[in-house]
Amino acid sequence: ELKTLLNNEDMVDLMQIMRELDRANRVVCYRLLNKDLAMEVFERLDIEVQEDLISDFAETEANSVFKELAPDDRVRLLDELPARVAKKLLNNLSKEERNQTSELMGYEDETAGHIMTPHYIRFKRGTTIDEAMKKLRAVGEDRETVYNLYVTTDTRLLEGSVSLRDLIMADGDQKIEEIMKPDPIKVATGTDQEEVARLLQEQDLLAVPVVDKENRLVGIITVDDAFDVIEEETTEDIFDKVGISALNQRQEGRSRVLIEGSLPEIWKARLPFLVITLIGGFMAGFVIEGFEASLEAVAAIAVFIPVVMDMGGNVGTQSSTIFSRALVLGQINVRYFMRHLFKEILVGITMGGILGIISGLVAHLWQGMAGFGIAVALSIAFTVTLASSLGFIIPYILFKLDFDQAAGADPIITTIKDITGLFIYFYLVNFFLGHLMG
Amino acid sequence: ELKTLLNNEDMVDLMQIMRELDRANRVVCYRLLNKDLAMEVFERLDIEVQEDLISDFAETEANSVFKELAPDDRVRLLDELPARVAKKLLNNLSKEERNQTSELMGYEDETAGHIMTPHYIRFKRGTTIDEAMKKLRAVGEDRETVYNLYVTTDTRLLEGSVSLRDLIMADGDQKIEEIMKPDPIKVATGTDQEEVARLLQEQDLLAVPVVDKENRLVGIITVDDAFDVIEEETTEDIFDKVGISALNQRQEGRSRVLIEGSLPEIWKARLPFLVITLIGGFMAGFVIEGFEASLEAVAAIAVFIPVVMDMGGNVGTQSSTIFSRALVLGQINVRYFMRHLFKEILVGITMGGILGIISGLVAHLWQGMAGFGIAVALSIAFTVTLASSLGFIIPYILFKLDFDQAAGADPIITTIKDITGLFIYFYLVNFFLGHLMG
Ligand SMILES: [Mg+2]
Ligand SMILES: [Mg+2]
Ligand SMILES: [Mg+2]
Ligand SMILES: [Mg+2]
Ligand SMILES: [Mg+2]
Ligand SMILES: [Mg+2]
Ligand SMILES: [Mg+2]
Ligand SMILES: [Mg+2]
Ligand SMILES: [Mg+2]
Ligand SMILES: [Mg+2]
Ligand SMILES: [Mg+2]
Ligand SMILES: [Mg+2]
Ligand SMILES: [Mg+2]
Repeated sequence: ELKTLLNNEDMVDLMQIMRELDRANRVVCYRLLNKDLAMEVFERLDIEVQEDLISDFAETEANSVFKELAPDDRVRLLDELPARVAKKLLNNLSKEERNQTSELMGYEDETAGHIMTPHYIRFKRGTTIDEAMKKLRAVGEDRETVYNLYVTTDTRLLEGSVSLRDLIMADGDQKIEEIMKPDPIKVATGTDQEEVARLLQEQDLLAVPVVDKENRLVGIITVDDAFDVIEEETTEDIFDKVGISALNQRQEGRSRVLIEGSLPEIWKARLPFLVITLIGGFMAGFVIEGFEASLEAVAAIAVFIPVVMDMGGNVGTQSSTIFSRALVLGQINVRYFMRHLFKEILVGITMGGILGIISGLVAHLWQGMAGFGIAVALSIAFTVTLASSLGFIIPYILFKLDFDQAAGADPIITTIKDITGLFIYFYLVNFFLGHLMG
Repeated sequence: ELKTLLNNEDMVDLMQIMRELDRANRVVCYRLLNKDLAMEVFERLDIEVQEDLISDFAETEANSVFKELAPDDRVRLLDELPARVAKKLLNNLSKEERNQTSELMGYEDETAGHIMTPHYIRFKRGTTIDEAMKKLRAVGEDRETVYNLYVTTDTRLLEGSVSLRDLIMADGDQKIEEIMKPDPIKVATGTDQEEVARLLQEQDLLAVPVVDKENRLVGIITVDDAFDVIEEETTEDIFDKVGISALNQRQEGRSRVLIEGSLPEIWKARLPFLVITLIGGFMAGFVIEGFEASLEAVAAIAVFIPVVMDMGGNVGTQSSTIFSRALVLGQINVRYFMRHLFKEILVGITMGGILGIISGLVAHLWQGMAGFGIAVALSIAFTVTLASSLGFIIPYILFKLDFDQAAGADPIITTIKDITGLFIYFYLVNFFLGHLMG
């Protein structure tokens, strides 16, 4: 029957099935799984799917799944759940587990403390390798990882790290401090999750220890969770870029909401930026209105409005994307901002020159008026240079003001370059075609 | 002196220093490092920095660094180097290592075979746990990982996987096949690198085995390399989105090139899309020219060109981003494309309705003509609906045609919505303000 079939699927196919089912069928299918397999599946599901399942479960079902989760997975889920549901689930934990979970929840969102797990393995100085291996065999089953191990003092001050690789290579009667790496790479509880994830990536670590202000070991963050952080942060960056707002502070998995959410949820994410764009568009229209007299004299002026607007828009987005990406990846050092800006202006002037000459020629041939060609060429050159500089300057200012630089930059750039670009264009047309107008 | 200082820096600071130095100073600083530390640093550097160092090294220096690299890191570097340099480095390897490296290079770019490492550990059926541990201690030092182990037949057919965690928990005289996980998750040599990386992420794996068509184990891919693949692919997606071309097929680390590259390199990446935009802008201008008579009668028509263009543009980019992202993350199933499209059209109509009413009111109040308000409202509503549908349809078609859907979609959407949107706008203005015009 279906039950046997499902329980014999391999994990990859099973996840695929769970992903493709709709919400009602998903919970039915989930209930057909054997308990252990069910937990393994649950742990791997997207956070929004976990959230749906928990809401669809009966209370005892929800409680027993929640109890089985690792502390860090529990926190991740609690972040998404309505406060009422979260409270009920917490109350059902054992006192020890409730305290442990509350402690993690107490660290600020998106920090190392908030996403770490306290289920690490540590040894005290003086432990021999044989003793360490014995302990590993005893507790290894339910710890997050047995591959990254830590050496601390009696008061949990972090002294060193040991990998299981080094452990199995060592002599049984050596002391653990002889083989530990002293002063290991570590992060503080307050470190931003993205910084932690980039550190794991750069240093090819499987886990990193988290210490409090007194250098006491309080948890670890493993590479699988760092992987998810990077995914989440990059999806966020991409969506910020095209003007999709976060639905709420904690709802990070915006992609699924935008696909499966209700109409009001989708409006909430998509409309705000569009309204800003609307305002920007009207402001650009205001500039055009200021030159209505010229337009009445030479209607053909309107023909080149799109090209001036589009060129500036695309160059601005290119530049701000290059800047923000390089900043995140550590390829731009803000201390040398002026050097980077200078180069970008050079890039803008040269690209603006090339594109200006092309469009000037087209405009001249098309409208048969040299004045038009010159006006179009100069405004494109100017707009491209301006937009590329703004593409570095605006994200830099937002970064300095401690805003998330990806989110606000593009509408600001668009508005400035539209207004300035169109103004320059009309001004130059007026100047060069002045004799044609009243 | 500086040398002692550098060699005592921890790895994180050292990487920071290497990143901030310019090319000439970097090679000087690198030469001050002790040999082992130098290798560790080299392995962690960005691929473009590795490339620069190799070019700046003397021949013997380059050869000795290259020899020390893991096979997968070697391939990654060879992909970037000029053919002449690559050939020299290859010729300097031992025959065995040269063959091994050439074999990996032989697999198509961006496939599992191309990025895997052959330095895995496998056991034959019948091996006892004690024997396995003994072998681990003997060979573990220079294998990519000792945590994920594989069981094969004599002819290397993959039979199961064992984690070191399970191994240390088991009895010494158990046979390895008793504790192995049969039929483990695996990928084929031809599987796309992005798919491999997503699999590791979804299943929280530290490594995945790669098998050939006969199910023979040929290599493994570890999580640290999967992490880099995701980084590379997402940066690519973000840049494709704003129209930055790949500089060449293999130069994936485009972010650094765009910051540190020469002017011609930057032009090559940024200008092509801008030229397409230029053409699109002129095509939109062509539509405007068709209505020059109306513009001559009522110049104020030009005032609302920006708002029509901007609204369609932003909605289109939102939709295509949502679609492409959800496709990559497996949240959209192309088999149910019509269902997704239908919902997006609904989103488009409702958002278009809201935005249309707002802008119609503004236009009416501003210009004091009801006809203007209606024309603006209807064209915004139409353009927004069209752009949001195109935002799903165009990437879908490109995906079906097996193009990388992120790259080409936006310019196509922009051009279609500009031409159609402006045409509709002018047509409606003509219709509603007809009596004002000649
Ligand atoms: Mg963040
Ligand atoms: Mg790495
Ligand atoms: Mg975890
Ligand atoms: Mg997990
Ligand atoms: Mg971020
Ligand atoms: Mg966030
Ligand atoms: Mg590649
Ligand atoms: Mg790819
Ligand atoms: Mg995962
Ligand atoms: Mg590797
Ligand atoms: Mg590596
Ligand atoms: Mg891709
Ligand atoms: Mg590619």
